[in-house]
Amino acid sequence: IVKEKIDWVSQFSHDPTGGLSRLLYKEDWLQTQNLIKDEMTKQGFKSEFDEVGNLFTRFEGELPETILIGSHIDTVVNGGPLDGQFGVLTGLIALEVLKEKYGKPKKSIEVVSMAEEEGSRFPFTFWGSKNIVGTPDRSEVEDLEDIDGVNFVAAMTQAGFNFKEEGKPARDDLEAYLEIHIEQGGILEREQKQIGVVTDIVGQKRYTVEVDGEANHAGTTPMSYRRDALAAAAEMIVFIHQTAIEFGDPMVATVGQIELVPNTSNVVPGKATFTIDFRNTRSEALDRFEEAITEGLKRIAKDYDVSVDLDRYMDGDPVPLDPNLAVKIEEYCKKNEIKYRVMHSGAGHDAQIFAPFVPTGLIFVPSIKGISHNPAEWTEPEDLAKGVEVMIGVIHELAY
Amino acid sequence: IVKEKIDWVSQFSHDPTGGLSRLLYKEDWLQTQNLIKDEMTKQGFKSEFDEVGNLFTRFEGELPETILIGSHIDTVVNGGPLDGQFGVLTGLIALEVLKEKYGKPKKSIEVVSMAEEEGSRFPFTFWGSKNIVGTPDRSEVEDLEDIDGVNFVAAMTQAGFNFKEEGKPARDDLEAYLEIHIEQGGILEREQKQIGVVTDIVGQKRYTVEVDGEANHAGTTPMSYRRDALAAAAEMIVFIHQTAIEFGDPMVATVGQIELVPNTSNVVPGKATFTIDFRNTRSEALDRFEEAITEGLKRIAKDYDVSVDLDRYMDGDPVPLDPNLAVKIEEYCKKNEIKYRVMHSGAGHDAQIFAPFVPTGLIFVPSIKGISHNPAEWTEPEDLAKGVEVMIGVIHELAY
Repeated sequence: IVKEKIDWVSQFSHDPTGGLSRLLYKEDWLQTQNLIKDEMTKQGFKSEFDEVGNLFTRFEGELPETILIGSHIDTVVNGGPLDGQFGVLTGLIALEVLKEKYGKPKKSIEVVSMAEEEGSRFPFTFWGSKNIVGTPDRSEVEDLEDIDGVNFVAAMTQAGFNFKEEGKPARDDLEAYLEIHIEQGGILEREQKQIGVVTDIVGQKRYTVEVDGEANHAGTTPMSYRRDALAAAAEMIVFIHQTAIEFGDPMVATVGQIELVPNTSNVVPGKATFTIDFRNTRSEALDRFEEAITEGLKRIAKDYDVSVDLDRYMDGDPVPLDPNLAVKIEEYCKKNEIKYRVMHSGAGHDAQIFAPFVPTGLIFVPSIKGISHNPAEWTEPEDLAKGVEVMIGVIHELAY
Repeated sequence: IVKEKIDWVSQFSHDPTGGLSRLLYKEDWLQTQNLIKDEMTKQGFKSEFDEVGNLFTRFEGELPETILIGSHIDTVVNGGPLDGQFGVLTGLIALEVLKEKYGKPKKSIEVVSMAEEEGSRFPFTFWGSKNIVGTPDRSEVEDLEDIDGVNFVAAMTQAGFNFKEEGKPARDDLEAYLEIHIEQGGILEREQKQIGVVTDIVGQKRYTVEVDGEANHAGTTPMSYRRDALAAAAEMIVFIHQTAIEFGDPMVATVGQIELVPNTSNVVPGKATFTIDFRNTRSEALDRFEEAITEGLKRIAKDYDVSVDLDRYMDGDPVPLDPNLAVKIEEYCKKNEIKYRVMHSGAGHDAQIFAPFVPTGLIFVPSIKGISHNPAEWTEPEDLAKGVEVMIGVIHELAY
């Protein structure tokens, strides 16, 4: 049934590579949101857009409190069939199943298909969730353009949406936000678990490091005369990698990008520029790591007689999720003998935007080979079904 | 006087960057060769092109033997005022000075302004010298094109030249070949020497190394799961650098170029491709170094659970120059209290093409900051003059 639902919701957004590309406010994006709206309305739920295009489908309860479930409906360019929309579909399935099995809930249950999370069309992420918990500053998006030069506001109004009114108070009926998402990593698969109970979303810092040495002739410059920017950068990269290993899980550090000048086989590199991305669930560990590599890189630069310049361009705090919700998810798994593990998320999710405002829970299902943002992204159907089962179980406990 | 001559010979080839660009068979190249031919003819010397455009200016002696001096007249794109043409000009000045001071020599003295050495217009190097000591295979150049799609043979015939007759015997009157060139390195300057007496030209091997790991999400992949192609490559690069230092002079090794896939800050690199260029005056050392890094890189690949593939795309033997000529140059310096040092060349020169066929000597003058292949290439005028003096002194000894 999950597989069928995935095919159903994917129908407008197939791209030529066999992947899914569903970018914010594009025609197929709007068709998909309307497909859900029409189907859920037909099933008797109230399904309505907010100002910016988040679609809320509500199963009205007796009490004023609302349990919100959801994820984002947009994808990256050439993405896979699960990232985001699996969370939305799980919510829709949950509504149908709960209605059929248990009827009207005590607390209202609402499923949100959020407009945007990936930042794939415009360079702005979490547009959907940020508009639910607050009001993003218009100036942050007003001047953004997509790859075809289309302006953000033009795209939004063309799709029939507009800015949320400034100063509009946030909803005060939300008692919990729950999200289910694919892991996008390989831990659950390796450990043969079906469910990940997420307690924290990592904070991350990103740096650009510039190493300046001296370009020289590769034949006529003795080793002792050299100020080789790449040799120095290489020792720095090894140091960063080893330091992350020494810190131990959940520390991860990645040098993913490097560029040399002049980048020619017979010239000693004069300049090397590389990135560092490091993540941890604890701010204290991020700060300690930052200090360790700053010192280490400066020492290595001195050894190689080069200069090093570190420029931090991203600094995101770790986000702890609600421990009570995590315990509820864990207990459901225990009671039903589902293989699970408690873990953190190394990637960002809508849940991190909700967590400071609403008690938030996040459930992972395994990603085969850890692949995501790729048409090959997939999860075994029995694991998808298990995820849906856990979500239904937890909502039932919270709302009935 | 040297400075004036440099301006004179450079007049047709100034480029917009303030450098010299004189590419084989281009109009300014032909104008420059003809400028020399006309001037030397006017001075009473026989000045003639060979088939391919090498220009020989001959000062006839009494005996059948010839002492040949020269260098190449072509430059790299956006090159400097000394690389190549300083050697040609030194020869021309030597002819004038020797004629005026000593008159007719016993052995003929000939100055060659060679057509091409750099491989800058077409991807073929040493076209000039290779046509003097032998006959390059036509098939090696027939299909070459320059950056504008002009064919090698078309460019050659357009300039009025053609292939040398196949099987034409090489000249048997050459008793020595002498070349003076800028060092293109920083050793003489650092050691405050005016003259380098070159005994060997390095051999070099070049490799492309491909490291294959696995691309992964930078946030969701624990350090222990990673097969990071860049972390492995970085440790390899450090190993190559350190091994070259341990081997000691004259070993040099350079990783000058690196490319990653996908080269994105938040993805663990799946693939890293880099070059190695290593040089030494002894074949045995090159082989030992090759063995050391092959073993080392394989060991490191194993440590990082990645694969490594080494592909050698260049393998040039070291070329020893004539020891007797080196001693003659050295003795001239000693006798005249000129600060010199015996050294090797880490760059290639026409001398290495002559050396297997004719006793060959090579003299260096200092390069300021080691800069060459750049408009900033320069040598102090007194050092240029000292080079000319040494060349004249040695030729006088050989030819009179």
